[in-house]
Parts: sequence; structure tokens; C-alpha cells
Amino acid sequence: MSTLDIVGGSVLRPDLTVERGDVLVDREEGTIEEIAAAGETGATDTLDATDSLVIPGLVNAHTHVAMTLFRGYADDKPLEDWLQEDIWPVEAELQAADVRAGTKLGIAEMIRSGTTGFGDMYFCMPEVADVVDDTGIRARLGHGALSVGKDDDEARADFRRALAFAREYDGTADGRVRTMFTPHSLTTVFEDHFRDFVPRARAAGIPIHFHANETVNEVEPICEQHGIRPLAYAAELGLLAEDSFLAHGVHVDETEIELLAESETAVVHCPASNMKLASGMAPVQAMCDAGVTVGLGTDGAASNNDLDMFDEMRDAAMLGKLAAGDASAVDAPTAVGMATAGSAAALGFDCGRIEPGASADLAVVDLGTPHLTPRHDLVSHLAYAARGSDVCHTVCDGDILMRDRTLTKIDMDATIQNATDRAEKLIDRAT
Amino acid sequence: MSTLDIVGGSVLRPDLTVERGDVLVDREEGTIEEIAAAGETGATDTLDATDSLVIPGLVNAHTHVAMTLFRGYADDKPLEDWLQEDIWPVEAELQAADVRAGTKLGIAEMIRSGTTGFGDMYFCMPEVADVVDDTGIRARLGHGALSVGKDDDEARADFRRALAFAREYDGTADGRVRTMFTPHSLTTVFEDHFRDFVPRARAAGIPIHFHANETVNEVEPICEQHGIRPLAYAAELGLLAEDSFLAHGVHVDETEIELLAESETAVVHCPASNMKLASGMAPVQAMCDAGVTVGLGTDGAASNNDLDMFDEMRDAAMLGKLAAGDASAVDAPTAVGMATAGSAAALGFDCGRIEPGASADLAVVDLGTPHLTPRHDLVSHLAYAARGSDVCHTVCDGDILMRDRTLTKIDMDATIQNATDRAEKLIDRAT
Repeated sequence: MSTLDIVGGSVLRPDLTVERGDVLVDREEGTIEEIAAAGETGATDTLDATDSLVIPGLVNAHTHVAMTLFRGYADDKPLEDWLQEDIWPVEAELQAADVRAGTKLGIAEMIRSGTTGFGDMYFCMPEVADVVDDTGIRARLGHGALSVGKDDDEARADFRRALAFAREYDGTADGRVRTMFTPHSLTTVFEDHFRDFVPRARAAGIPIHFHANETVNEVEPICEQHGIRPLAYAAELGLLAEDSFLAHGVHVDETEIELLAESETAVVHCPASNMKLASGMAPVQAMCDAGVTVGLGTDGAASNNDLDMFDEMRDAAMLGKLAAGDASAVDAPTAVGMATAGSAAALGFDCGRIEPGASADLAVVDLGTPHLTPRHDLVSHLAYAARGSDVCHTVCDGDILMRDRTLTKIDMDATIQNATDRAEKLIDRAT
Repeated sequence: MSTLDIVGGSVLRPDLTVERGDVLVDREEGTIEEIAAAGETGATDTLDATDSLVIPGLVNAHTHVAMTLFRGYADDKPLEDWLQEDIWPVEAELQAADVRAGTKLGIAEMIRSGTTGFGDMYFCMPEVADVVDDTGIRARLGHGALSVGKDDDEARADFRRALAFAREYDGTADGRVRTMFTPHSLTTVFEDHFRDFVPRARAAGIPIHFHANETVNEVEPICEQHGIRPLAYAAELGLLAEDSFLAHGVHVDETEIELLAESETAVVHCPASNMKLASGMAPVQAMCDAGVTVGLGTDGAASNNDLDMFDEMRDAAMLGKLAAGDASAVDAPTAVGMATAGSAAALGFDCGRIEPGASADLAVVDLGTPHLTPRHDLVSHLAYAARGSDVCHTVCDGDILMRDRTLTKIDMDATIQNATDRAEKLIDRAT
């Protein structure tokens, strides 16, 4: 049996306590075999975790990873202007090779900051799946299908494409690629298309992911047109279910929180994007109190502007307090739980916790730095003081994706150069 | 003449444009001599800035640096409970050696994240001044004097001590230590003590710094007791002036913003602390629009929980948008300006800009990483995507404080160990 031992460190347990121990990994199964007392190791390979904390690999449950190509391209604008004036014109010029370049860049960034899994809704998804396969990370992927800006035939073709992608690619990359059906949002997809295609996805057992209640401007038209709140409309369309999850949920009222809890629909909170686009503050503590599963996502790098889940944990803890008007809201364990078990549950991954049988998706955080000293509370440090650059090793599915801050499956310099070249040419074409 | 050239990179100019160039430093004067076209260098020493951006050293205009010892000690509590239940009991046990240990730890963290100057209000300030001297950083320091919890004689002794410290230490450490008179806040200092001691500070030409309008709970008692808004009260006490600056300014109304602008009193915005303690959202864009000088600070590490000014720029840009309900508010150049020229102006330092004659306080940011790719806009990257760990070299007063991420004047491992030991013993004494 091929084994990997992560030795000499402390381990973050599923109850968010910390104890000394070695993590033994079955590389063939891609699972955690045992958390053992420190001792002799007979493993095929070892990773040194001395003076470090082994944590579940972080899970970025909502992103558009290829949008790293637009990082810093257009900032400091409201969502609608930003999409219409800046993002959609360049997206119209996107080629498959651009998506490939941006995806690889984003995955490099995620692995370097301890993220081992992500949920992605975008275009050219076969390219994204291929890069996921090559780079060793885990992902749940969906082709983002829209009605707006298309005639009915084109739109229907887009939804069929989304279903076809979900069917064809599920379970590829040795099971690291899972898929989902991703109608873009409650306002950009027409009711007819929801009515026709959601049942097909459900019949095929495909999870559903969509944007909802991100800005006030999205909520009001639905209330006016349908006479009910957006998530009541979503429930009518069959969008709410245990294997479904929505992104944002900023402007949700109590009845909608109840709908989410009852239907076991998860929410992916994107605090940085919600702040940067001035969308508002999601009532995260209220959702947690109601029993809603809350995961965490960066959204695309164009509205963040990074894919660092340590930033996102910090933002979630900070913004959650402001939203609740209560400094005890969204405490450090809640934020860390959202980025690990919460996101894993949203995406339906068997990771996000360190215990025997779980996927061996792990990150090792170096604690030997001034900004993580002293060590009164390591969960606090994860939420408030650590940053992606503190991660020294990243492991996914039992494979080492980064060792001593060197990526093992990605040529970082070539990836940076290729993304730089593709971004430059893309902007030239679009402007 | 001893010279230092920072070669091969790009330079952030005072108007926040970026151009290729070398920065030539006069080490004896501690100033920037010239920004030159790339070329042959005859300097005594060089720093390599290839593929990097040279920026003004960041200025952390409000902190309590020794509080790094309490990082993660007590989180997720409202300001008043957190102070009374957690912070004040351990502060009561603080010894000079603890302040020394925490200060050195915090300065190590700041230098490693590109901060070259800070403003500090705390206890045992001669110890702080001494560590500033040793470590090569720049600081404006004040003994935080309070009335509450003391009898009148004790309180007066405390204010005299604050004045004496300001007089004695100003200009020490080759001019890198400047001082200020720091009555703690409008609610923790009694009116009599303000009336007696503010004029003495003014007569001696000593700048004044204090906390104001941080929480609603601080604003209401002043309105009730004095019948005027807190900053009108501050104006009456003689606290508002060109060489004065206040921390926080979260709950300020239009009339107070006008008072700040008219009196040229600077505000140090502390967005992370304001979020973490659920204090509220400062109207930063409104203050900037009114012509108020706004700097940026981390506050103490116990309410942040780090001293990384890159985090703070990001938080300022993000929170400023939410506060204004406008995604175009507090844009990237505004956030970067606050952390450089704004903070420098608040502290009265001749730094925060790269031009001949200014203090040679500089940080070099490595751009060759996935999370700073592509490079559509480097000012955007500084505000939204860069982090303290991207800084490769830090220079203050013409001296190299960090070269290739290695601290030159601080033994990092010994500093971490000492802070760890002191923090452990301190908590043992207090609990």
C-alpha cells in the first residue's frame, strides 16, 4: 500500500479542537487512514509538519475560476455596471484557451493558499474539467446557462449543453470532477426555461447551483413579477433541495431562511464579493441559527480580487458581526467551519474534516511566524491572522499538490506567463 | 556618501501612477535622492527589485503594538465586555518586559509586511521607544493616559507622565522616534483633566492623539452630558488641530466631519477593528469628500488580529463601499493613499511618497506570483490582492530592515520564543 504520513504537527479535529498527532494517508484510496500519536513512520512518503497545524483542505464553494484573467481589470463599480460595461464585453471574446489559462492560474493560486476543492460555474467547462484533472485538485463544475441575451432556441441549446456537460463529465479525473446543473440566476434565466430543464436535472439526479438574492435589484423584480419572495419562487421551480445550493443569499428574509432550512438547501456566502460590489451583508448568523448549511466562496477573482480562502474566513467573521450588530456573531469556529465542513457539505464532497475514511484533502499551516504568535487559540489564528502564504504543503485525494511551497503538478512560471499573455490579447480583442 | 540603489523594478509615484525606474537612496541622510532610469549603479549597496514594485513603506497610524501578546486571547466579544472581562485584567499584570516582548514581536510582523512607521498609544512607552530604536522602524509614540479607575491624584500623575514622556523622547533614535500627548478617549478622560493638560501639550507644541466616536455607546453619554456631539466637545477642549488626529471616527455626523475638515484634524480609520468589535462603519468616502485627511491603522492585534496593512487597505476599500452603499466609494487609489500619504500626514512624518527629499521609507513588493497575475492595474493589486508576505525588502530611514524576507535587525526566532514565553506567564498571572 502506498502511504503518506504528515508528521510532527498538530491536527485540527472535526470538533475544531487541536491535538498533537500524525495524519496517515492511504494514497491509493485517497483517504485518511488514521490520526496517530507521533512516532515511527513506515510510510512511502512523509511531509514534515513540525511547528505546523494540519487542517482540512479549504473548499471554495463558489467561484468562476477562469475570471482570474480579469483580476484588477475593472474595480470599484456596482455589479450591473461592472458586468455590462466591463466583464461581459471581454467575456464575449473569451476563447477556450483563455479559460484554460485562467483556470490553471486560479488553481495554482488556490493550491498555494491551502484550497483543495472548489465549485465553479462558467463557460468552456470541458476545458476547466481537463485542467482540474491535470492539476490534481477537486471540483464540482457546471456550465452556467442563461436565457437573457439569447433567442429561445439559443437559450434552450445552452441549457441542453449544461445538462450534457453535467452527464458527461461527472466522476471524471478519478472521481475528482463532479458536476452540477447551473442555471445562472433567478433573474437571468426565464421561468419557462426553469420549468423545462430543472425537472430534467432532477430526474438525472444532478445537483443544482444558482445565484440568488445577491443585490436588492435582483429581489425586487421577482417580488413584483411573481408576487412572492425570490426563494419562494425558487422553491416553486423545484430549485431548493438537499443536493442544491445557492450563491450569495444576501437579501433574504426570515421566511426565506426558513425555506432554506426546511429544504436543506445550502448557501454559499461570498463576503468579499458582497462588500466589493456593495451588494450588502448576508445574515449569516441568522442562517446558521436556523440550521442552514453555510459554505464559503470567493466568487470570481474579478470581484474579490483573490482566491484566498483565509481572506474569506476573515471577511466572513468580520462582516457577519456587522450584519448582526453583535461582535459575538460568526465567531472564529463558525468561520473555519464554513470554509471546511460547510463548503464540503454544499458541494457534496466527503472532505472538510480530518478523520479516518474522509478524503485526504489537507493543508499544512506553518505556525512559526510572528503574525501567528503567541498561540492562545489556533482556531482564532486560522480565522483572523493566518493567510494563504502560511500554507507549506497541500494534499488532495492523497496526492501532494504543493510541498514546501513548491507546486508539484503545475509549472508556476509558465502558468503566470501564459495567463499574462492570454489576458493581454483578450483585452486587446475586446477593446 | 553611503548609497543604496533599489534596482530593476517599477516605482509607485505620488500620483499613484507606476513607472519603471531605480530608487536611489542617500543612506546618511535617510532620504530618497533620485528616481532614475534603469542603468548602471555605483551604489554602496543594492536591493534587487526585478519583477517587483517599489512602494512607500506603509504607515500603521493607530495601534497598540504590545497587544500582539493578546492576539487570539479573547475574540468574538463586544468592545466593552472584551475590555472589562479580558483585556484589562491581563493588562493589569503587564510588566515592562512584556511590553518589550510584544512590541518587538509586533515590529517584526510590521517590517515583514512592508510597514515602516507606526503610531502607538500604550503603557511603558520608554520600553517601546527603546525597541523602536533597536529595530530601525519609525514611530510616533504616546503614553495613553486615563482618568477612569483612578483617583484624581493618580490620574493627574498619569497625565504628567504622558507629557514628560512626550518631552523626553521626542527626536530620539536618530529622529525616528517622535512623540505625542495621548489622552485615551473622550469618555475615559474626565473634562477637568482635558482642561488642565491639553493646554500644556499645546503650549509645548506636542501633537495630540485620542480615540473618539468608536461605538454608539461612546457617543450617547457625551451628547447627554454636554448637549453637543462628541467632536464639538473635542473642539471645545482644544483637541482639534492640524497636528492632532483621532482614531476611529465611526459614528460621526455631517457637522462633525465639517469640524474635522475645518480644523485639519486627521482621522485614522481602523476598519478591521471596527468590524471585529461590531462598532460600525465609518463614513470614509464622505470624510475624504469633505477634505478630511484620513489615515489607516490596524488598532491592536487583539482586535484585528494582525498588523498587516495590506489587509487593512483591502478592508478599508471593502467596508467603505458598504458604508456608502456605493461600489465606487473608497476605490483602490484612495485605500492605497490612506495607508501611505494619509497615514504619514496624520503622524506628521515626511514619508509615504517616493520622491526626492522624502524619507527613504520603502517596501518592495514581489509581483511574480499567481495571485498578482495578470497585471491590469497594480494599484488595484496593492489594495485588493497583495498581502504582507509579498513584501521582499523593507527599508526605513535608508536602512535595510528586511532583505529577501530575512529581518536584518531582529532575531525572529528568539523574538517569537520570547513573546510566547512572556504571554504564557502573563496569562498565568492574570487568571
